[in-house]
Amino acid sequence: MHRIEIEAEVDLLALNKKLARENREFFRENGITVFNIMGAIGSGKTLLIEKTVEALGSQLKIGAILGDVVCNADYERVAKLGIRADAINTGKECHLDAHLLHNRIKNFADMDLLLIENVGNLICPVDFDLGEDYRIVMVSVTEGDDVIGKHPEIFRLADLIIINKVALAGAVGADVDKMVEDARSLSNAEIIKMDLKEGIGFDEWLNFVRRAVNVSGNSGKS
Amino acid sequence: MHRIEIEAEVDLLALNKKLARENREFFRENGITVFNIMGAIGSGKTLLIEKTVEALGSQLKIGAILGDVVCNADYERVAKLGIRADAINTGKECHLDAHLLHNRIKNFADMDLLLIENVGNLICPVDFDLGEDYRIVMVSVTEGDDVIGKHPEIFRLADLIIINKVALAGAVGADVDKMVEDARSLSNAEIIKMDLKEGIGFDEWLNFVRRAVNVSGNSGKS
Repeated sequence: MHRIEIEAEVDLLALNKKLARENREFFRENGITVFNIMGAIGSGKTLLIEKTVEALGSQLKIGAILGDVVCNADYERVAKLGIRADAINTGKECHLDAHLLHNRIKNFADMDLLLIENVGNLICPVDFDLGEDYRIVMVSVTEGDDVIGKHPEIFRLADLIIINKVALAGAVGADVDKMVEDARSLSNAEIIKMDLKEGIGFDEWLNFVRRAVNVSGNSGKS
Repeated sequence: MHRIEIEAEVDLLALNKKLARENREFFRENGITVFNIMGAIGSGKTLLIEKTVEALGSQLKIGAILGDVVCNADYERVAKLGIRADAINTGKECHLDAHLLHNRIKNFADMDLLLIENVGNLICPVDFDLGEDYRIVMVSVTEGDDVIGKHPEIFRLADLIIINKVALAGAVGADVDKMVEDARSLSNAEIIKMDLKEGIGFDEWLNFVRRAVNVSGNSGKS
């Protein structure tokens, strides 16, 4: 029985790889910089997207695709900002995959930056390349300061690690330095200590976004 | 390709059902009350187990099985309390299943209460009956006050819903009443507003535990 599961998984991952490659080609051809934003429930992914649109929406054409198991709450929050947005409800699936995105991305061909919010989960999205340029992993100190060590895979593959809600570290008894060390032991990615509600680390994030768009978005756009 | 995935899933769920039934028979025969404690990362599951052992460990024989993707941090916290405990590392799997528990539970035959901490995840554990008597779902206000509406399935099937870290609601801007309403709209389960660090709601929890042990644990034990 477990054998069957493994075979199916291999097939699915091979298919995902192929479709992710196609997605990536589409993004390159159209000069779109794509972020796959991953993190647990409540880590701050949607708020990060909202604030990024507020800060950079006049300089960059930004689109967003919001993944959730059910309901469109995150989508509605972002769509209210007037940008092009789409919602993907995965049903019982705990991650986005390249196939779910494959037809949706066509509507974002004229964007400079596409922000994809993955389903809130630190385990399942790891294996599924979406065709993105950058994997952003967000955690918040309220998840416990052992959260990074408990989910090494997703941090190993991250291009940027954000430790959010640092202003609450005292209230929840979390050791931010330990979290940074744990992240550093797994990855050479840039690490941003952030508190979105207090504005901490947001400039660093905007710099990361601007650099990313300059690097990967300089082809194809007329 | 997706067809293959679905077939495998159906087979796996059928196998899980069968093994869950066997687990449940084992628990009944031995008079063990079993809790399947589910919730996202950082919702407070391990701390709840620790505090329950401290409060009731002299009256009840309590065992614990701690599920995690990798690492034994939660297991080590609980084992330090001197109770019988076991750790299950699921590797890449995002939930426990009846099969993973099937051989481990033999060591807990003489317990009054077995606390199973599922992998930190509000999506994947839903479909997998472990053979437990009660499904406990824990969320914390720091996950955002929309977390319940976003994950209806796990709350629909809950026997007890715990909303933890209510003392932080102001700091994170969460509306606890909304969370209670969302939970109530999905389930008739008892709802406990809790803050484990402040001791809020803990007596209600202990009453729930004592009632549960009296109801389901009164058979088989010599």
